[in-house]
Amino acid sequence: MKYTHDQNSSVNKTLLALLFIFIIVGCSKSPLDPLPSWNEGATKKAIVDFVHNATQEGNKGFIQPEDRIATFDNDGTMWSETPTVEIEFIKSQLKKKMTTNPGLMKQEPFKSLTKGDEAALLKLKISDILKIMATAMTGMSEDEFADQALTFYKTAVHPRYRVPYQNLTYKPMTELVTYLQKAGFQIYICSGGDVALMRAVTPMIYGIPPEHVIGAYFVDKAVEKGDRLVLMRTPKLATTNDMAEKPVNILQRIGRRPVFAAGNVRTGGDIDHLRYSGEGALPSLQLMINHDDADREAAYAEKNGASLAAAKKFNWFVVSIKNDWKQIFSDSSLETTKISQAAK
Amino acid sequence: MKYTHDQNSSVNKTLLALLFIFIIVGCSKSPLDPLPSWNEGATKKAIVDFVHNATQEGNKGFIQPEDRIATFDNDGTMWSETPTVEIEFIKSQLKKKMTTNPGLMKQEPFKSLTKGDEAALLKLKISDILKIMATAMTGMSEDEFADQALTFYKTAVHPRYRVPYQNLTYKPMTELVTYLQKAGFQIYICSGGDVALMRAVTPMIYGIPPEHVIGAYFVDKAVEKGDRLVLMRTPKLATTNDMAEKPVNILQRIGRRPVFAAGNVRTGGDIDHLRYSGEGALPSLQLMINHDDADREAAYAEKNGASLAAAKKFNWFVVSIKNDWKQIFSDSSLETTKISQAAK
Repeated sequence: MKYTHDQNSSVNKTLLALLFIFIIVGCSKSPLDPLPSWNEGATKKAIVDFVHNATQEGNKGFIQPEDRIATFDNDGTMWSETPTVEIEFIKSQLKKKMTTNPGLMKQEPFKSLTKGDEAALLKLKISDILKIMATAMTGMSEDEFADQALTFYKTAVHPRYRVPYQNLTYKPMTELVTYLQKAGFQIYICSGGDVALMRAVTPMIYGIPPEHVIGAYFVDKAVEKGDRLVLMRTPKLATTNDMAEKPVNILQRIGRRPVFAAGNVRTGGDIDHLRYSGEGALPSLQLMINHDDADREAAYAEKNGASLAAAKKFNWFVVSIKNDWKQIFSDSSLETTKISQAAK
Repeated sequence: MKYTHDQNSSVNKTLLALLFIFIIVGCSKSPLDPLPSWNEGATKKAIVDFVHNATQEGNKGFIQPEDRIATFDNDGTMWSETPTVEIEFIKSQLKKKMTTNPGLMKQEPFKSLTKGDEAALLKLKISDILKIMATAMTGMSEDEFADQALTFYKTAVHPRYRVPYQNLTYKPMTELVTYLQKAGFQIYICSGGDVALMRAVTPMIYGIPPEHVIGAYFVDKAVEKGDRLVLMRTPKLATTNDMAEKPVNILQRIGRRPVFAAGNVRTGGDIDHLRYSGEGALPSLQLMINHDDADREAAYAEKNGASLAAAKKFNWFVVSIKNDWKQIFSDSSLETTKISQAAK
């Protein structure tokens, strides 16, 4: 009887000790970091403070739930743009077209394309670029185009990393999207990429539904086909959704300004996008991502430095990939091995 | 003691009787009707069955939450269109313009306008209509336009009912919007009305946020004003969002087909809208509202009868305002007194 009692007592003491350990561990541990792929620093602190304030009623930085609108550029902001995914898609579309129409590659501007490098492509005239885009991306129904886009994402691999393009989303940015969504923000993609090409993967890779994707698009025409209405992609480009077209399309689509906006340095394409976000009456935050990490991802600047100059002038936070991002891709091994292979 | 006991006993009996009444009333009463302004009938039953099936996993009619998209026309579907609210807005805008520019009313097509009747206006050439619309609705910033729209809604009254236009929403339809929203549907307005003019009131009158309004719009231009970007409304009409433009714009905006769509008989403007909804792979329901109630609201048909013919061909439910709607407006007194006054 005494032995049993002692045994119970020692079991109780062990349980009590375990309970204390749980309590101590529980209390000393900091709250779960919502942005684990971001290094501590001024930018991360600004984001966390902004979200905290936006969601605390009575706080000076409080933002009504219906006004919590955030817009993110896609290429170079949400995923890698070296090379641009859409250009790779266009190349793959033209390759398919050339098998059925071999004469195509002998004509300009397609002839230049076969040389293959993106630099040559970027030197083409606007009218030639539009001709290439229209040939690769229009003439089919929207349903057919969506299928072609899905096939591309399933089969194509990045020339350097040798993985599908959707594996090259930036982990710090997908964390940020999730963090903002949990704080009641509606997240939109606002990119110069083709809207249908992006929509084929945005729900899966970002958790962003099709209705929250704003992009360039070709005008559709509803035509009668076998007693059904079919939406056909025509070669008329409605908008490039770049530069000053970004705020115009944001207002047309969302009906108000974003209080959070992110873009990146390369062409100046996000300057008006971020200005539109920052010039509203509500508290807001803007991020301009700078690709300055040649070792882990890519380092490229803008010819005239306009995006960084605007960031300084308008008080946007410049995100240094090198310093602010602890990890870039979900598979961090891509950041080390594959680039050095590519450098060979 | 006996008296007291008898008294208690009779109090207890009364309480017991009341309890029984409560139970009987409680049990016999059907569950709360989500559509109290709709009369019982085939259309109401079809709506309730559709929503029930769409939300029951495992049911043949189940629709994944992300696919629960519904689109509603506005004029004549969500609120009264006799007269068309936008035309009244245009008249009020031109009246203001004429005070600052009295010469305007002496020029065509504005001269015709001063005669005032909508029938004369509807006979104008498309180019004249566009000229009138552009004069009334463009040249200002989007912020200024939003202010002008709000002022109109606050001050203008319907010529017949003598109440603000936002009091003339159809109660059965706002009930339907709320019912669908509670069942996880995203509700969009898809109308030929100007998107900014509608957005000024849709959150308040329908509980539909600005980003869920699809409409006609004039192209905006971002211009630099005092170190700020201002979006100015230019006279270039981007889309009328009518007829075949409805499915085109729905896909552009939402990225997929609606499984529920509602429009009304008058011009045939919703035929392609409803076809697009009905021709998808998912279970769907379409409503075509027929204004057949001269006593309580209005009775008007379509010249060629195309909308009703399409409803028959494509199995859409025709909503008879006379038979299907128990009550039309929130203030049901409008349905009796005011029309007879107007008839004088």
